[in-house]
Amino acid sequence: MHYFKNFYQIRSNEYILDKLKKEQESIGYYKLPFNDTTEIKEFADSVNRQTVVVIGIGGSSLGASAIYDFLKRKNNLKKRLIFLETTDPIDINSKLDSLNLDDTLFIVISKSGTTVETIAILKYLSSKVELNKSNLVVISETNTPLHKYAKEIEAKFFEVPKNVGGRFSVFSAVGLVPLATIGVDIDNMLNGAKKVYNNFFKKQKEYDILMEKARFIVENKNRFNINVIFSYLSALEGFNKWYVQLWAESLGKININGTRQGLTPIGLVGPIDQHSFLQLIMEGKRDKTVTFIKVADFEEKIVIPKNSPISELDYLEGISFSKLIDMQADATIEAISKEEDIPYDVITIDKVDEYNIAELMFTYELLVSIIGTFMQINTYDQPGVESGKIILKEKLKALKWYF
Amino acid sequence: MHYFKNFYQIRSNEYILDKLKKEQESIGYYKLPFNDTTEIKEFADSVNRQTVVVIGIGGSSLGASAIYDFLKRKNNLKKRLIFLETTDPIDINSKLDSLNLDDTLFIVISKSGTTVETIAILKYLSSKVELNKSNLVVISETNTPLHKYAKEIEAKFFEVPKNVGGRFSVFSAVGLVPLATIGVDIDNMLNGAKKVYNNFFKKQKEYDILMEKARFIVENKNRFNINVIFSYLSALEGFNKWYVQLWAESLGKININGTRQGLTPIGLVGPIDQHSFLQLIMEGKRDKTVTFIKVADFEEKIVIPKNSPISELDYLEGISFSKLIDMQADATIEAISKEEDIPYDVITIDKVDEYNIAELMFTYELLVSIIGTFMQINTYDQPGVESGKIILKEKLKALKWYF
Repeated sequence: MHYFKNFYQIRSNEYILDKLKKEQESIGYYKLPFNDTTEIKEFADSVNRQTVVVIGIGGSSLGASAIYDFLKRKNNLKKRLIFLETTDPIDINSKLDSLNLDDTLFIVISKSGTTVETIAILKYLSSKVELNKSNLVVISETNTPLHKYAKEIEAKFFEVPKNVGGRFSVFSAVGLVPLATIGVDIDNMLNGAKKVYNNFFKKQKEYDILMEKARFIVENKNRFNINVIFSYLSALEGFNKWYVQLWAESLGKININGTRQGLTPIGLVGPIDQHSFLQLIMEGKRDKTVTFIKVADFEEKIVIPKNSPISELDYLEGISFSKLIDMQADATIEAISKEEDIPYDVITIDKVDEYNIAELMFTYELLVSIIGTFMQINTYDQPGVESGKIILKEKLKALKWYF
Repeated sequence: MHYFKNFYQIRSNEYILDKLKKEQESIGYYKLPFNDTTEIKEFADSVNRQTVVVIGIGGSSLGASAIYDFLKRKNNLKKRLIFLETTDPIDINSKLDSLNLDDTLFIVISKSGTTVETIAILKYLSSKVELNKSNLVVISETNTPLHKYAKEIEAKFFEVPKNVGGRFSVFSAVGLVPLATIGVDIDNMLNGAKKVYNNFFKKQKEYDILMEKARFIVENKNRFNINVIFSYLSALEGFNKWYVQLWAESLGKININGTRQGLTPIGLVGPIDQHSFLQLIMEGKRDKTVTFIKVADFEEKIVIPKNSPISELDYLEGISFSKLIDMQADATIEAISKEEDIPYDVITIDKVDEYNIAELMFTYELLVSIIGTFMQINTYDQPGVESGKIILKEKLKALKWYF
């Protein structure tokens, strides 16, 4: 008798760990935190222009944007970072109008070197300002049209390795170059990611937590097909968007048995979304898991003063806003914990700096890799978006005939 | 024999229409577009301060914020509008630091007059700047602590009618006062809403479209429990957030038969989210309906120039960005239309002005009312968020003992 088994099955943790280790030969993101940053830092130090504009979309912008959003209101960054990430003419015009083009560095990022949105904006930009090696940096795979262009105008070029996908590229030049130029300590950032990598593969606490979480999510994916992140910090709004891309594009796949997988990610911000989405979590269909993200120390001491207006709420007086938002998170968590079938977990980050955001992001990258392995999908491709691209290209080329 | 029937059933369109008509006796939002705006406009004309800050959360900020986001990059608004809508100390500090407090008008909005976030910010603000009738406006129900405070300091007061819920309040003073003060033509805005109201209740085209859409969503709610809005205009990002609140808080309910309802709303922006969430729509579980929103005329003519860099993509040259983004939307729609089980519809708004955004928002309010009636829920309450509020209040009052 022969017995052949190819159907969906839950694999052992050891099997998954082994697969993740082997996968590192072909999937490049795991080792990014260990790369040498000297060249990037030297380049960053040489930039005098006061504003930095990233031209890129999806994986080419969301990572740096998440970290910039996280840090910009708190840390003293030396330059402004702006993202041109859409073909919306109102967005392009209003952003370019706000710039002093002669004092701006442009970083154009496209892994393939042929991303329609990015190239369209670059082309338009070339009619507004002369692009040359003094104001343009190119980040792409090697031997792409964009790389060729960089060589032509002798612009600074940084490579995205072929085996690093866009949504996993934040710790490559894609994230590091823009962030370093505005003054982010990228070495400390990478330290946060390294710590998670080392602890996970040494089977420390991170290993048990991520394996258990991934296992729960996969085993219950048909019951809880929506995964919500509820961030109690407005500066995590960019991180929420990055998470949505990472999760949706990596896990929305047909698996080796031809079954459609799909865990739908949703990013919320507390306490704002207590006044919006929370009602649905509490009384709607029980199809959601919730991950709360809190900050242990906001490092901002602003206090609600005594004897201030609206005495009916005098119990707020004397409390700091850091304490208040923390209590709001805890009250929501407690309300949810009283319900029987809303699985939740809580992540607390120590403080608002580059080390902590990198820790959080690398943790999510690993989590997605584990879930993808459990689900027996290719976590790293995105075949579902190709058909729209082909249709667009055909439409554009057909149109071209009329010009 | 007696036959009693109380179980879930699909009602006739006539039954729904009749219910919506009768409901107007107790639900106030329907008639808001017909209110007199004289007092609001007179007040708005009297405001000299250059920045307007709204202190409010959820339904007290999302509506005005959606319309401001929609108009700000395109229309020549005469003042800046800023929202203090969270207890996050980093957010509060960075926004207040960016203001000239002596040239700022503060509009504090809370229907109950006791919203924790709003009152906490008001209290803190009172220690930074003297609040008086020259710089503070209050919007609330009558006879709330906030109303009492307005009377004490003789500040201008506008009423939110008791029978208008926060998430349906954008066409009341809650939305109109902030928008009028920064120069939005609120009468034209209300005209957009009025048109939808009149056409719907006169059973014009809007009636058939909304009834058909609501019926499809409700009949297929267990199969397609996620409703995605894919807006091909970055300025609709605020609208997306408003839609998420309207949909989640109105429809995430236990119905009269004790069954948990819950259609999960997701707001996307195209083409950005083509590089993120689209993969999940295409290859993930088929649990989503998609509504595309397009703009017929961006009124921005910026064109991708001839003979510009990256000749490999020369087929983009000569095309305007308005045309390009429209083609991107169409290509995505075509790709989705080729799939068998992704129900979608397309809404095209004429142009980016206050009339069109009001039309869109009032249409969604009606759609939610219809769906709620079909689902036999109370569309207008939010009992699920109360338990967290009670826990927070208890925690705060317990803490108070220590001060």
